[in-house]
Amino acid sequence: MEYRKIQEADILFFQEILGQENVFTNIETLESYSHDYTEDLKYYPEVVLRPGNAEDVSKILSYCNSNLIPVTPRGAGTGLSGGSLAIKGGISLSMGRMNKILSIDERNFQAIVEPGVINETLQEAVKQKGLFYPPDPASKGSCFLGGNIAHSSGGPRAVKYGTTRDYVLNLEVVLTNGEIIETGANTLKYSTGYNLTHLMIGSEGTLGVVTKIVLKLIPAPKNTLLLLAPFTSPENACAAVNGIFLAGANPSACEFVEPEGFRLAAELLQINFEIGSDIEAYLLIEVDGNNLDEMMRECETISDVLYAHQASDVLFAETANQKEYFWKLRRGIGEATKHNNIYKEEDTVVPRAELPILFKGVKEIGNRYGFRTVCYGHAGDGNLHVNILKDQLSDEYWHTEIRSAIIEIFELCKKLKGTISGEHGIGLVQQEYMNIVMSQTNLELMKGIKKVFDPNTILNPGKIFNG
Amino acid sequence: MEYRKIQEADILFFQEILGQENVFTNIETLESYSHDYTEDLKYYPEVVLRPGNAEDVSKILSYCNSNLIPVTPRGAGTGLSGGSLAIKGGISLSMGRMNKILSIDERNFQAIVEPGVINETLQEAVKQKGLFYPPDPASKGSCFLGGNIAHSSGGPRAVKYGTTRDYVLNLEVVLTNGEIIETGANTLKYSTGYNLTHLMIGSEGTLGVVTKIVLKLIPAPKNTLLLLAPFTSPENACAAVNGIFLAGANPSACEFVEPEGFRLAAELLQINFEIGSDIEAYLLIEVDGNNLDEMMRECETISDVLYAHQASDVLFAETANQKEYFWKLRRGIGEATKHNNIYKEEDTVVPRAELPILFKGVKEIGNRYGFRTVCYGHAGDGNLHVNILKDQLSDEYWHTEIRSAIIEIFELCKKLKGTISGEHGIGLVQQEYMNIVMSQTNLELMKGIKKVFDPNTILNPGKIFNG
Repeated sequence: MEYRKIQEADILFFQEILGQENVFTNIETLESYSHDYTEDLKYYPEVVLRPGNAEDVSKILSYCNSNLIPVTPRGAGTGLSGGSLAIKGGISLSMGRMNKILSIDERNFQAIVEPGVINETLQEAVKQKGLFYPPDPASKGSCFLGGNIAHSSGGPRAVKYGTTRDYVLNLEVVLTNGEIIETGANTLKYSTGYNLTHLMIGSEGTLGVVTKIVLKLIPAPKNTLLLLAPFTSPENACAAVNGIFLAGANPSACEFVEPEGFRLAAELLQINFEIGSDIEAYLLIEVDGNNLDEMMRECETISDVLYAHQASDVLFAETANQKEYFWKLRRGIGEATKHNNIYKEEDTVVPRAELPILFKGVKEIGNRYGFRTVCYGHAGDGNLHVNILKDQLSDEYWHTEIRSAIIEIFELCKKLKGTISGEHGIGLVQQEYMNIVMSQTNLELMKGIKKVFDPNTILNPGKIFNG
Repeated sequence: MEYRKIQEADILFFQEILGQENVFTNIETLESYSHDYTEDLKYYPEVVLRPGNAEDVSKILSYCNSNLIPVTPRGAGTGLSGGSLAIKGGISLSMGRMNKILSIDERNFQAIVEPGVINETLQEAVKQKGLFYPPDPASKGSCFLGGNIAHSSGGPRAVKYGTTRDYVLNLEVVLTNGEIIETGANTLKYSTGYNLTHLMIGSEGTLGVVTKIVLKLIPAPKNTLLLLAPFTSPENACAAVNGIFLAGANPSACEFVEPEGFRLAAELLQINFEIGSDIEAYLLIEVDGNNLDEMMRECETISDVLYAHQASDVLFAETANQKEYFWKLRRGIGEATKHNNIYKEEDTVVPRAELPILFKGVKEIGNRYGFRTVCYGHAGDGNLHVNILKDQLSDEYWHTEIRSAIIEIFELCKKLKGTISGEHGIGLVQQEYMNIVMSQTNLELMKGIKKVFDPNTILNPGKIFNG
């Protein structure tokens, strides 16, 4: 596709729609929109636009569709697959101004929000009404709900409550021709033709721009309990994860962390965390509910399983402060791992019981290729984030051999009936590996769907697949 | 689309693939495949084929695609929207021979099944291993899991556990060109390109033929408790439904039934059921779990809500026999309502709190047009099945005025942010109402998607939308 470069006349048109204050061409702004949380990538958009409502988005898309100007929707820029980068130039469509919670319907357990609402802002707002919005990516303090929909984001609580996908009832979407549609209805059930809502979720801003989101809420559990268990064997820790579910427990989080992850997080956050010299893995396990006795019994069941898998200890976070301390460490790992290092993060996911095989395989591949990995993630979902660190490897090695290693990791996922992304999406950096887990026909079907929604390929071009 | 009629050479080809014993052209077989549970419809296929595996399906589709012969996949024929009827003639592709449970993976809480497995057969098989497959359409004793996927079928337990959609991890699908693909991975999370699994679910056999299904299982709750509450006011019963959830209860079923439904079911099943002369609605409410004390407390909470909404009584099913008695009555309503009457069943769904308005509106419309309705359904989901009975209405009135009444009912659904099908699908009979709840653009997008998967429109043609 031959795209048109942005011209002075385009800028004037955008300024007319949005006002001068929402059209940015200065280098500082372009720079800050040139990267997200993915590796060390940098792609400058030609202009950053901040629409205020669906009508603005409609006018922009319609104009860009006619003029073959690429448009890349962007949330908070916390993505880990490069999905929000304007790799073909053109417009970075920043959704941050559309940040209103439009309604919280306590009767129907629903919230209607704009895409620029921060995940945690919604969580806090509904909590005040005794309601609960479970999906909680590590970046929940900054990531946008629109971005969560783009990748069907998960987070620790997905193990009990599901991912973003499970909470979206309906979407308002602007299509590339400027039309504004609703994809479904505000109902708990829907069997009215092809499910456009589910098609839109996880499509990474390549099919339309989400401008309104109807979310399902649930009653908030009143209490949480938190356990931390160190292990001398990471395989035992992984195996304990499956044991927890086989014992009938239903934790609201079940996280695996390598000690190096906690060490780096403690260092960056400047908080104290002691790691025994023989410790090689941790499980961080949360239980939630309304009945403390029942929750204590669930913790006992889990504790029994952990000791049966040779946990060195089972620490119980007694106070709210202690719980926050552990969660702060856990949420800090992503940033800490990437601090002062070049990295590639792989979002591997397999059926839960296969986790020990995946972990062992990743370490074996790392040893063979000579790189270090820090692994952590949502073990209860079989979702392991593998952070490959560049350390002292040469640039040449990093750009050639590492690719072969990643292929081996993903081939192992495939063999275990898993896939290459559980919650981060494909975006830019994973698309070269798509053919490992799906046939060319799957890709052609996706390209065909893309063509139906975006015949001129103006919307987030070059993502998920080439084309 | 101009389809080719089946010729002698086609029959020989199919016999060669499937064996003579799986190719049917005799009138008795064609007759039994000419209808499902929808109204009084009758459409004869030209031939019934019973493939034994994905390769058979692949050869059939590839041949029919080249020869422009329509193929209509068919499960158990229990559908309520005419989705499995071969309205353009051609092939009725009966999936009943592909009825194997291929594996139950207790470690990963997964089952792999063929599409012709009966819903209840799977439920019983996993129950023996302490596992649970929640989706339970009223026809669970006969309906196929493949058909459940075609319409994302629900059932009473959807209120707590979700519909079929929430339990499908991965699908093997044969495309019209004969290619066999997997739509996803066997994982709890998936963010690897457009979600073809979710697109396939609810697509009513118009995009591909499902030949293998990977399902998520959960641990089985050990106990259930069942309450039946009669009301003198149906609006109060509907309002009580929302009250139950606002009180923090999480029932595993919350069914609304008009007394006429129970009366007809008791009559057909020849079992005794006394209905007080002033009773105008029932709620049937199930609670499940592992801790009986906690479940009893939940029942008390629910009971308080029911009495607060003027329930005349709250009956508690004490024994397994009593529970089965109530459920038998509930499951029998669908067939009983349709017995000895011509009917149209509408699968209305709205946000739960709007149920009283929907119910009142349906009755008002019925009164105005002069027809009788029997309403029942999954009130906890806001999903009300409205059975319109022909009784003594003239054929002409039935085919003209009733249509206007249905439009009014669906317009009310739309106004309440609901839709025209929660779990039965669109199939043949609801497609003329699609434009009430969605724009022409939505329909064009769906048609575009159809074209990508089935460029020659051979697969279940004339369903969901024209084209």
